[in-house]
Amino acid sequence: MSARLTVWAPDVAFPEVRPGDDLAALICDLLAADGAATGDPVAEGDVVVVTSKIVSKAEGRVVRAADREQAITDETVRVVATRERPGGLPPLRIVENRLGLVMAAAGVDASNTPEGTVLLLPEDPDASASGVRAALRARFGLDRIGVVVTDTAGRPWRDGLTDIAIGAAGVAATDDLRGGVDAHGRPLSVTVTAVVDEVAAASELVRGKADGRPVAVVRGLARYVRAGDGPDADGPGARSLVRPSVDDLFREGSAEAYARGLADGRAEVPGGRAR
Amino acid sequence: MSARLTVWAPDVAFPEVRPGDDLAALICDLLAADGAATGDPVAEGDVVVVTSKIVSKAEGRVVRAADREQAITDETVRVVATRERPGGLPPLRIVENRLGLVMAAAGVDASNTPEGTVLLLPEDPDASASGVRAALRARFGLDRIGVVVTDTAGRPWRDGLTDIAIGAAGVAATDDLRGGVDAHGRPLSVTVTAVVDEVAAASELVRGKADGRPVAVVRGLARYVRAGDGPDADGPGARSLVRPSVDDLFREGSAEAYARGLADGRAEVPGGRAR
Repeated sequence: MSARLTVWAPDVAFPEVRPGDDLAALICDLLAADGAATGDPVAEGDVVVVTSKIVSKAEGRVVRAADREQAITDETVRVVATRERPGGLPPLRIVENRLGLVMAAAGVDASNTPEGTVLLLPEDPDASASGVRAALRARFGLDRIGVVVTDTAGRPWRDGLTDIAIGAAGVAATDDLRGGVDAHGRPLSVTVTAVVDEVAAASELVRGKADGRPVAVVRGLARYVRAGDGPDADGPGARSLVRPSVDDLFREGSAEAYARGLADGRAEVPGGRAR
Repeated sequence: MSARLTVWAPDVAFPEVRPGDDLAALICDLLAADGAATGDPVAEGDVVVVTSKIVSKAEGRVVRAADREQAITDETVRVVATRERPGGLPPLRIVENRLGLVMAAAGVDASNTPEGTVLLLPEDPDASASGVRAALRARFGLDRIGVVVTDTAGRPWRDGLTDIAIGAAGVAATDDLRGGVDAHGRPLSVTVTAVVDEVAAASELVRGKADGRPVAVVRGLARYVRAGDGPDADGPGARSLVRPSVDDLFREGSAEAYARGLADGRAEVPGGRAR
């Protein structure tokens, strides 16, 4: 097992991405320029990490800022929790979106977008990752390469945001240690590590938010990276990290669940029949 | 801003930690041996990452496995959600523990502990991080150094576990971008990055779970690392990442909140007086 990881964001300007751009080609150009400048080109076993923002921009997932609330509604599969906000702002909505991700505002984002617009998440980030992976394999003649598409998300119970993987291809989404044993020969109680989320978090540390560095490379995780092409090599993607609803103990916000219970309780009459 | 991160787990055997061991000295010994072997010693601006497991072991936070359920109860400040488990297992309990962390089983862990025992989280991981930091500064004559204490935690809505920071000293817990602007000059809507949680996640990728590598070094984040000593240099610690309850929309599991609402609704009579 490798015990050293190198993570870098190429120090090469990335162009402003426009709808219809061949994003995979732009990423390959960036990595080629970085490799030429540093003498250390992308290599077998590397994972290339790409922000969802540039994927969305290339896909033209831009809507007018005035349509932001409608865009959130359109992206929403299920409302999880809402909260009123002061100052006449529309309520905060934490929802499950089309991708199965539970996020504030469905992941609709207003930073690093052209004035007067907001950005929706990519249509299918796992497929986008697969496309970038195929381009990297062809352009650099590599076999074993992984791609992760990231977004920034909040977490219940903890302040601050971290990057997570919303798309992945050619890299194991998880490291399943079930069946493994610890140094004492006892079964590992920590069973499944969300590898691609940890990759996304590591990449954020070199990319930053305001610096126009939408691409990073992670070296040292070849044990998680797959060779070959096609769906088997791409693997299950980041979608596989979405927890099934049957295992979700936080499917509704506390206030929402309480309100539903209260209404159900009020509707009952002693003896069990509804009023 | 640095755009390159190096993360490594020293390839040096770490002793089995016993109650009362001087953990900070053991960590310094490990890093000294690693530096001697590689010619690349720990340096100004590095962040040293330590698993909570060895902190707990040094503190003697070990209880008999037979007392596990009682230990969870003792560590619990507030029950957030519970779930029955099959096979005669005690219920899963997701609780807020003494440290403000919402975790399954209060963070009580049964892997990588001696047979017949389980391990509680450290008494005060921010203080532990501060102690390790002071030792590193003294031993290596360094001024600007950070320490993070990690644990492994689940997340609502996403399968798989990631490492988070439960203790920190000398490293900024967050990167507060509020007031910053993006490449278009617009306010950044992504405001506060949980830096130390991303550091913890990155370190997990080199440490692994079963390999007896409880220490990692992260280089390339000097912009987040503080010089000097004392409380000001230690900073607010990982405790500062605990979300205040007033901002917590998931303070109760959905089922628990619903049940409470149902009971309250049933207890009402039309007209608003309780039965």
